Amino acid sequence: MVFRSARRRQRTEPAGIRPRVSQTSLERADFTEFAPEPLAFLGQAACIQLEFFELLAKAVATSPGLAPKEGVSVVAGVALRRHHRLLDEVRAHDGDPVGIMQPFADATLEFREQIQGADWWELLLGIHIASGMLDDYFSHLAQALPRELRERVTELLAPDPRAAGVLEAEIERGIREVPGLGDRLALWGRSIVGDTLLVARSALRGSESGAGPGSGVEPVFTELIAEHTRRMDALGLTA
Amino acid sequence: MVFRSARRRQRTEPAGIRPRVSQTSLERADFTEFAPEPLAFLGQAACIQLEFFELLAKAVATSPGLAPKEGVSVVAGVALRRHHRLLDEVRAHDGDPVGIMQPFADATLEFREQIQGADWWELLLGIHIASGMLDDYFSHLAQALPRELRERVTELLAPDPRAAGVLEAEIERGIREVPGLGDRLALWGRSIVGDTLLVARSALRGSESGAGPGSGVEPVFTELIAEHTRRMDALGLTA
Repeated sequence: MVFRSARRRQRTEPAGIRPRVSQTSLERADFTEFAPEPLAFLGQAACIQLEFFELLAKAVATSPGLAPKEGVSVVAGVALRRHHRLLDEVRAHDGDPVGIMQPFADATLEFREQIQGADWWELLLGIHIASGMLDDYFSHLAQALPRELRERVTELLAPDPRAAGVLEAEIERGIREVPGLGDRLALWGRSIVGDTLLVARSALRGSESGAGPGSGVEPVFTELIAEHTRRMDALGLTA
Repeated sequence: MVFRSARRRQRTEPAGIRPRVSQTSLERADFTEFAPEPLAFLGQAACIQLEFFELLAKAVATSPGLAPKEGVSVVAGVALRRHHRLLDEVRAHDGDPVGIMQPFADATLEFREQIQGADWWELLLGIHIASGMLDDYFSHLAQALPRELRERVTELLAPDPRAAGVLEAEIERGIREVPGLGDRLALWGRSIVGDTLLVARSALRGSESGAGPGSGVEPVFTELIAEHTRRMDALGLTA
């Protein structure tokens, strides 16, 4: 529901403009009731960063040249560092990294399969879109964590401008140089959003009951989609 | 030649004992005439670390469980960090990372294919053996670099005990648990040595002439093989 209405509203706004919904929605969003326990949060976030790392490493290994390979390797390093730092936090909370990640392993692996796409460009766009949405989202969720942990997690998940720039630049180059790629990527980008939102919802406490979170968190999902549209716009793709 | 004789001598020594040849050979080894230029050295070393990273990332993605996946991800991080630090040195010497690596890209990629093996265990052993030999070797080669660069490179290529321990522990577990794996890995380990020594020789100045380096560097190759045998012994494998 939120999915469609948000996308429809987006359509009426000029491309590339960050929708005003963002800040106010976040202020209204209330995670206190649905935020996961700190260890569950860290375990799922670590699992997700590990899968981003694996996808990025695949992009490194299958890169069409040494220059893009080198660029993407830097992004892979960012995801791997985030993964390891999240597990450092698990250990600091007396958690066992593997045990804490285990409940999220299968679903995250499945998500990896869903977003890896059919070639190098789809792989890059899948990573760009999914990591853009989920890094944002987990930063929001982190606001319900105890203060010191919240600060460290917010800092380690903060957008890495160099990393995002590398993926954008490579995708843009592909769209410029490969005939028909823009249309294919626009379609691919749209197809990823649903799966990514499902992963986001699965992080909320009580999500397994099927009842779903209350309206308090809806604004965050609205913003995630608005930001996704902005990300697609920046690449010249219709979300 | 050095290959066979060194291996034969190894046989007569007790397993797991570091051969005495090591220190004296290194003192006698003279790299001054054959050592590569600093930028060529950095470019090839960076290329090799990048391929180790790609192999390790493949081992992460294809890992048989979350615990080994997590362990190998740490080793992948070590290789990636080395790669990026070597490229930092290239930039500090006003070199272009991609341009400096390019001459080594094809051969290193071919080497990656040669050592990746047929399954997860062969992949791990291939990485363990090849990185063990080549990290050692490039540390030796680095002694011919200007002092400050030498110190930084020696430090960044220094063995990471945690990383080597992870690979050893996983390979040992496989040998214990998988029937017939020990014999297969012993064979696989032997088959990698030749290709790895070819990569090592290709790093020497003048290697492309086909004349090959003089006898001054032979002791280093002898030691590489002795260390390889020690590494195989530690796993209970016949080198």
